[in-house]
Amino acid sequence: MSPFTGSAARTPDWRHLRVKLDDGVATVTLARPEKLNALTFGAYADLRDLLAELSRERAVRALVLAGEGRGFCSGGDVDEIIGATLSMDTAELLDFNRMTGQVVRAVRECPFPVIAAVHGVAAGAGAVLALAADFRVADPSARFAFLFTRVGLSGGDMGAAYLLPRVVGLGHATRLLMLGEPVRASEAERIGLISQLTDEGHADEAAQILARRLADGPALAHAQTKALLTAELDMPLAASVEMDAATQALLMNGEDYAEFHAAFTEKRPPKWRGR
Amino acid sequence: MSPFTGSAARTPDWRHLRVKLDDGVATVTLARPEKLNALTFGAYADLRDLLAELSRERAVRALVLAGEGRGFCSGGDVDEIIGATLSMDTAELLDFNRMTGQVVRAVRECPFPVIAAVHGVAAGAGAVLALAADFRVADPSARFAFLFTRVGLSGGDMGAAYLLPRVVGLGHATRLLMLGEPVRASEAERIGLISQLTDEGHADEAAQILARRLADGPALAHAQTKALLTAELDMPLAASVEMDAATQALLMNGEDYAEFHAAFTEKRPPKWRGR
Amino acid sequence: MSPFTGSAARTPDWRHLRVKLDDGVATVTLARPEKLNALTFGAYADLRDLLAELSRERAVRALVLAGEGRGFCSGGDVDEIIGATLSMDTAELLDFNRMTGQVVRAVRECPFPVIAAVHGVAAGAGAVLALAADFRVADPSARFAFLFTRVGLSGGDMGAAYLLPRVVGLGHATRLLMLGEPVRASEAERIGLISQLTDEGHADEAAQILARRLADGPALAHAQTKALLTAELDMPLAASVEMDAATQALLMNGEDYAEFHAAFTEKRPPKWRGR
Repeated sequence: MSPFTGSAARTPDWRHLRVKLDDGVATVTLARPEKLNALTFGAYADLRDLLAELSRERAVRALVLAGEGRGFCSGGDVDEIIGATLSMDTAELLDFNRMTGQVVRAVRECPFPVIAAVHGVAAGAGAVLALAADFRVADPSARFAFLFTRVGLSGGDMGAAYLLPRVVGLGHATRLLMLGEPVRASEAERIGLISQLTDEGHADEAAQILARRLADGPALAHAQTKALLTAELDMPLAASVEMDAATQALLMNGEDYAEFHAAFTEKRPPKWRGR
Repeated sequence: MSPFTGSAARTPDWRHLRVKLDDGVATVTLARPEKLNALTFGAYADLRDLLAELSRERAVRALVLAGEGRGFCSGGDVDEIIGATLSMDTAELLDFNRMTGQVVRAVRECPFPVIAAVHGVAAGAGAVLALAADFRVADPSARFAFLFTRVGLSGGDMGAAYLLPRVVGLGHATRLLMLGEPVRASEAERIGLISQLTDEGHADEAAQILARRLADGPALAHAQTKALLTAELDMPLAASVEMDAATQALLMNGEDYAEFHAAFTEKRPPKWRGR
Repeated sequence: MSPFTGSAARTPDWRHLRVKLDDGVATVTLARPEKLNALTFGAYADLRDLLAELSRERAVRALVLAGEGRGFCSGGDVDEIIGATLSMDTAELLDFNRMTGQVVRAVRECPFPVIAAVHGVAAGAGAVLALAADFRVADPSARFAFLFTRVGLSGGDMGAAYLLPRVVGLGHATRLLMLGEPVRASEAERIGLISQLTDEGHADEAAQILARRLADGPALAHAQTKALLTAELDMPLAASVEMDAATQALLMNGEDYAEFHAAFTEKRPPKWRGR
């Protein structure tokens, strides 16, 4: 993803998501609270397209993904998605399932950290969206459930069978994906599924504070840290240290690195430019 | 592995294992309690062949691997295996060590979840057998010991140096494989080596309950979840989401997915067919 | 790395490190306590070259990496390294960052276990050195901080974005590398970053005890365990079990394996030869 743009216009109106931009922080809210923010075909497509568009904007330095109402996201809508897929042909089924995977790839590959602010249920595709984020800021009401097998599908959905073992280890991942049982906040924290546990009702606020800190900090350094974490999961050690070396050589020519040294020498806090 | 069969006959009698089939659940018991179920050449070969045969039977939907008597399995028999290997030539040593690895690959690659029911000692090859299973259901008497270095061998035996870091992380795995010290149930639970900790003496019963639940559930969905977890440890993210998409498209044409939707609509529990 | 030597002479004097050899145990001490053992260009180069030289000596069977004074290592020196890199050109920056990565590769690839003895601060490159070690023996004063983003650089430095997710999982690793916050000993133990937590002030002593045990044990088995753990992080399951099989076949021809069996038969402790 790249800030270079061609003829493509910005999307004037995101109909399936609420999107806010505030000085480097994008907040994307799943806003169908009457349905526990169940995802529709349109919501998946908007998430995919929005992440691609935001990846072209240098202005975005951190993104919060939140859910309105009683929970984060209950997953694919039983009527609008499960019902509809029952009459799809093979090509349509592939198209749909590829789209959901593209959303996860976009979350992992966009050039800014993504923070999932989780309260209440994060189920099915909602659990995988949170899993794909760089940070999961959750309050004690959070409940993750990879319940794909509960609807007769594979626990490997949208990259969950790739991501979950790399976050919590293969043993826990097998149990969670195979059985689809809910993981409450305390267990999620214990096994490394949560990045930050907040007080009840404070997940959104804490996610905003973290996003603000990331956006106001050395944002290019954060972006490269994310890119390397994502890439090096799939790379051997020797290539990884070479990639790190090239990345650091690049950033050592950057403004923030010089600014750190100047600030340190002058005994003042650095003024990060994000580049 | 595939249910298609050619000329090969079923093995009429498993001499080195006790095998029971009960409505989708296979129970395989290491039954040499006077030797703490130490493994012999015959037992390894039977495990390898049995898993291949069961993988051809649609009837098997979950497998419990248990040990009779005071413990799960004390590993390769000191007299029958260590003693015998001392007079083997290079080709024979390779044949033996490849066979033990084939057992682990069969456990990881068979098309049904494998549940190790662990009480007492799970040492050496016994620890790796449990590690290769999808679930480790253990009681407080369980004691895992990857004691290969204690006999002068590499801690990487039967894929342990591949599997253990992916289950408990590289730090714990290095310590356990290098030093060969026993891991008691409480530590095993803390580091993610145990899937379910039961009351004393209840590991076998709990493993049966879990196997029954898996076998009576959407078994094809479970089988695909296992296959994806196994495959995606070795795959990059982009290929993994593509593999997930193809798998879900396939399962969305299956009976269980339609049954889930019908049951949900009719507000009744689904009747899983396992396909 | 190999014990075969050609024309290259041993380095007569390590000017940037203190090196001690004692009956199989090498102890390498970062000894610039007035600067919290901050690393200089010379110290990185010496670490790289020393590990290569020690890898050629059959005499070395375990290595302790320790820090003198108030802490383990505060990372790259702010004046001597950060200051100096600000006036380097692209090729020089690459040379420097490749060298630091070569140190980490040497720690992972040398044919003996490396034990980091950590008290006080292990920051930046100091945290990655400890992370690359096979064991982290730490006391309650230990504080790990991957603070690269705090100086405007990528958290992926010297392989940290490769290693840390494989030690503590992707969730914790993202948090630690992106935010650069200190991890105190209790959290480090909880998430699997510490191998052994000692009493206050006893990290060096405990590291020496562990090194002695490793050096006096079946050292070739330990070396192969390390080699397999390192290699199999980057290998698929099928290749890993084949590599394990070949390694065990090799070691089953070794003296220590025969000695174990003799000692077991004679009911006495084995006398390990390390081969």
